[in-house]
Order: sequence, then C-alpha cells, then structure tokens
Amino acid sequence: MQAVKLKKAIDTLKDIGEFGFIKKISRGCLIRPDNIIKAIGDDAAAFRSDPDQLSLITTDLLVERIHFLRHAIAGFDLGYKSLAVNLSDIAAMGGTAREAFISIAIPQDCPLDYLEDIYAGMKHLAAKFDVNILGGDTTGSPIDLIINIVVYGTVAEKEMLCRDAAQLGDIICSTGYLGESKAGLHFIINKISADSDEDKQLLKAHLLPEPHLREGRFLAQQSGVHAAIDTSDGLGSDLGHIVEESKVGARIIADKIPISKNLKKFCTRFDVDPVRYALSGGEDYTLVCTIAPEKTAKVASGFQKKFSRPLFQIGEITDTHRMELIWPDGRMSAFSPSGWDHFKEEKNDT
Amino acid sequence: MQAVKLKKAIDTLKDIGEFGFIKKISRGCLIRPDNIIKAIGDDAAAFRSDPDQLSLITTDLLVERIHFLRHAIAGFDLGYKSLAVNLSDIAAMGGTAREAFISIAIPQDCPLDYLEDIYAGMKHLAAKFDVNILGGDTTGSPIDLIINIVVYGTVAEKEMLCRDAAQLGDIICSTGYLGESKAGLHFIINKISADSDEDKQLLKAHLLPEPHLREGRFLAQQSGVHAAIDTSDGLGSDLGHIVEESKVGARIIADKIPISKNLKKFCTRFDVDPVRYALSGGEDYTLVCTIAPEKTAKVASGFQKKFSRPLFQIGEITDTHRMELIWPDGRMSAFSPSGWDHFKEEKNDT
Repeated sequence: MQAVKLKKAIDTLKDIGEFGFIKKISRGCLIRPDNIIKAIGDDAAAFRSDPDQLSLITTDLLVERIHFLRHAIAGFDLGYKSLAVNLSDIAAMGGTAREAFISIAIPQDCPLDYLEDIYAGMKHLAAKFDVNILGGDTTGSPIDLIINIVVYGTVAEKEMLCRDAAQLGDIICSTGYLGESKAGLHFIINKISADSDEDKQLLKAHLLPEPHLREGRFLAQQSGVHAAIDTSDGLGSDLGHIVEESKVGARIIADKIPISKNLKKFCTRFDVDPVRYALSGGEDYTLVCTIAPEKTAKVASGFQKKFSRPLFQIGEITDTHRMELIWPDGRMSAFSPSGWDHFKEEKNDT
Repeated sequence: MQAVKLKKAIDTLKDIGEFGFIKKISRGCLIRPDNIIKAIGDDAAAFRSDPDQLSLITTDLLVERIHFLRHAIAGFDLGYKSLAVNLSDIAAMGGTAREAFISIAIPQDCPLDYLEDIYAGMKHLAAKFDVNILGGDTTGSPIDLIINIVVYGTVAEKEMLCRDAAQLGDIICSTGYLGESKAGLHFIINKISADSDEDKQLLKAHLLPEPHLREGRFLAQQSGVHAAIDTSDGLGSDLGHIVEESKVGARIIADKIPISKNLKKFCTRFDVDPVRYALSGGEDYTLVCTIAPEKTAKVASGFQKKFSRPLFQIGEITDTHRMELIWPDGRMSAFSPSGWDHFKEEKNDT
C-alpha cells in the first residue's frame, strides 16, 4: 500500500514534512494535562479514566464536496464546526467532553495556512470547553480534504441521556432556536451577502454553532429528564430517532417551535416557511429532550435561571407511534423521521 | 453544509438508505456485551471503563488511491487490514484492544457487496481479538472510498510500553520477520501472480497482517521490557521514533535482522536486497522492543515457550544519537529515521 503514498506526496507540506506538520499543530493541543499519560507522539494516546463514570466515544467523518466546500468556508470555521458537531453528540448524552483526536487527509493543493486555520478553529473551541486534542492521524488525499474527529467523554450512568428513554406524556423541549442554521446556509449557497447584524447572526448559527455541552450537563442532572438528542439533521429526523427508539409517538405544536426574530425576518424576506426550516433544516445543534410533565416547570425555570434564556416547550410524547404537527388553525400534518437520510432523496412530507 | 450532501446521494445504497445500511452492518459488531451500555444507535457509544487501567485511543484514516487501490484489494482484505493497523498500535503500547469505531465515506460507484465484505473482514479480525465494533459514522464521498478506524484499549500504567523508554545497553528485539509485507506488495503492484505457497505467504503478510496483540501483552508483563513500537513504516523509521524520543542511538546487526526463508527466496528471484526490504518496507506489524540486557534471555525463552517461535534479537541501544547498521564484513552504514515520511521524498540512505 505504501508505494502509492509516495507518488501522492503533498508538495505544499514538503518543506516541513509529516512530522514537522504534526509538531506544528501539536502546540496548544494539551490544555488539561492532569491524568494524561501520553498525548500526541506514541502509538496511542493514554489517559486515566474516571472510575465512577461511563466512557462515551463519538466520531464524525467530514469529506470535502459532501459536507463542506473548501472555497466557501474559512479554515477556522471548518475546524471549529468539525469539532462542534462531535462535542454536540457528547452534549446529547448529557456527558462531559474530555479528549479529542483529529485525523486529516490533505490534498496537494491545500495551503499550509488553511490547515493551520483549521487547527486554530478546533483549538479555540476545544479550549472553550476544556477539551484536550490528544492525537490523530495525518496523511495525504488525492483530491478532497478529509477530516475525521473522535471525541471521548464521560458521564455518570444514572445521568446519561439516551434516545430510547422517552415516556408517554413527556414534554418535548428544545434548548434553543431551530432553523437558523439553514437560513445561514441560504446566504452561502446563493452567494448573498449577509450585511445586517441579523443576517450575520444567522450565518454564525450555521458556521460557528455552539455545542450545548453545558445545557446537556444541566439537563442530565435534573430529575425527570428522560431522552435527548442533538438537532443535527433537523427536528423531523432527530425527534424521529427518539420516537422510533423509545417506541412512542410525538405531537409538536407548530407555533411553539422556537423561531428567532432573525429567522422570522429572513423568512419574510425570502418568502420561506420557518416551520419547514425548523423541521428539515438541521445543523442547529440545540438539544431536544423529553421531560416528565410534572417536572418540566421546575427544569424550565432552573434552565432560565442558569442560562438566562428559555427552555422551549414544543410538544409532547404520545402513544401514536407517529409524529404529528398541530397548526394554529387546528389542522394536523404527519411528518416523517426520514427528513435527512444521506442516501435517499429528501421527502417533503411535512 | 447539508444541501451539498443531497446532490451526492449514493445510488447503490438508495434502496436500503443510510439507516438500513447501518442496521445491516451492525450485525456481528457487539461480541462482548458486558459493560457496554450503548453500542451503535445513540449519539455516542457508552461503556464502563476498567478503573485500574489507563485508556488508550488510536485512530487511522485510510484514503483510496493513497493507502489502497480499490480494484486491487478485496473488500474483506481492506476491512481486515484497516482494523489490523489500529490493533497493532494498541499492541505496541502493551495494551488490550477493547472497542472499535468505524467511519466510512462511500462513493456512488461502490457496490453494497464490496462494503459488506469490508465489514466482514473487520468483524472477522475483531472477533478473533475479542474487540467490539461499537459505532462510527456513515456518509457519502465524491470519488474515493475513505475509512477511519478508532480503537479504544486499556493497559495498566506500570505495564504500558512507550517509545521514549529505551535505555542505554537495551537489546533491540522484533516479535517477527521483517520485509515480507513489501515483498507481498511487489506481487500486487507488478501484477505478478503469486502461485507458490511461499509467494502466497508473502502476499498474506501484506494483505492480512496479524496484529501482535498477544505478543504485546506478553512483553508488557515481563520485567525489563522498556520501549516498543510496531513496524508500520519500516524498521528504519519505526526504530527511529524510539531513538529520537528516548534520546539514544541504535546499532543493528544486519545479519541478525529476521528474514524469512520465503523472503530470501523472493529476494534471490527478483535480485533485491532483503535488508533494504526490512529497513524500508514497513507494514509488517511486528513489534520492535528494547529489553534490559540482563533480562533478555529470560524474556526471549518465555516468548519462545509461549508462541513457539523466537523473539529475534537484532541489535542494541547506544548513546550515539544515530542509527548504525553493521554488515557481516564489519562495515558500518548510518541509516535514517526518515524512511517513511508521507510528505517528503523517500531517501535511500541506508
């Protein structure tokens, strides 16, 4: 296999070489050295686990032209977001993110500056959430830039939030606004300049989403919070996972879906439906959780107090084994969990 | 980012969809369910760590046309080897491999059969070494098939084998023959049929290398074993890491380098130098370790007894801060650690 590698040597990195590159990007990776025995530089990273916690591992593979367009995203934003989506998965389990591992396959034409910006974006976010970057893999790629991220986290077993734990009558909540990321993407793919502060906020929601790790830890520690997932593929798909794995149904009240002022303004301007954006947009990276009805008020008021913003209550868990949307006029639509299936065509059945 | 995904939907998987594909490949992944709380299907895998052990994590990113040629490797072999190289990294730390996570980005033209063969190869090897496949990520790719593997393992801190622990006077040993993998590759890249049993063994050494996990555990438990690394890039490069990180030198006795009868026969036939194959070949996935001289005989006899084959003693650790090769006629060559740097040109300086 190695004979092929040589022919694809990366010209732009030739001067510093693979190990020079690894040394360069290693700076600023280890921000929490306690209990880290081996970081970057051996066959594997080694660290002491917390004996009272479960280990969580999540991983995401991001491929140029599938998940991002290199010419359309700054290196910093790409690095930030690549890590953010993984931190969000740990948040959705109610866990604490602890260590990250970055693998990258680099095409010949990718400048070193762009690569350094990617790592700068990752390190910025990692430092914000006290996450070490402990290792990974670095190699070449024929055409597309490829990034794989692994995040290791921990959670106490009794606090872990899973997709299969929703109960009949639970109130469905979201830790933030939905649909903004899709609006931000609209500016990018249609090459519309985002000039106003509102538009810039939408763009930021798409490019630099905040993983709700602190919100996830808060929810995990509250009595009555049952199931959770992060909104990576859109409420329709993500809630669909909870419905399917908990073997329940869900009813969402359309005008309870949290739509920000910025998104409302955007929807008026571009004549699009904010509910559709919330249901099928994805990449908002809020948490959607289900809470026992008698506990919801206490959890919501605690959330408001801690984060100075509301925990949005958007519907309830039913026994219908399907997902229903109730419109303001009382009309009901069924919506499907297959909002985002990467191999099938999108179905507009909301 | 998601709008781009849709346009690249994978036709050959359309019928079963992403989640259908995940369900299909999930079978046979969980072979050791004890202490696994969440496997495939939630935002992250969750499992109970052993409180008395360090956690080890290693990851490798394999890209078509860089690390493998899809038309030239069977799916089973690709899956097997992708996992083997990661298990080998855990072996090189003296650890026990426990959980694996497989991410795969699939181009449109990749048939489902080929993908299933990849997972069959992974599952075969995982079952052999009692490793669960607990999750990962599945997505599309524009052109190249991409595989990222993460392996989580454990090791007692006092048993862990690192690259930086070699000591002056240590005997350098290898747990197996070197150079065979490069010979196997020769058949593939030159499209020469491997007909004899000997040639088939060389091909197997390249395609289906055995990770030395049991050998690594054995060495980790012996008194006097200091440093270790697996021979992934060739003895020159791999021993170079030990030399650099332990701040020592190394002297290798050329005719002590373990060359199998099969490789000798191959080298005669193709008029190539077996020592060069051993030093620069790589992908043998034996372990190279350094052992205190007064302990080496005991470790070597224990190894012979346990594995019914020798622990090859090939040289010693020096204080020269360079690597030397002593030929049978007493002549000395310096050799460099840069045998395999993916971004630089190969230097034939052995």
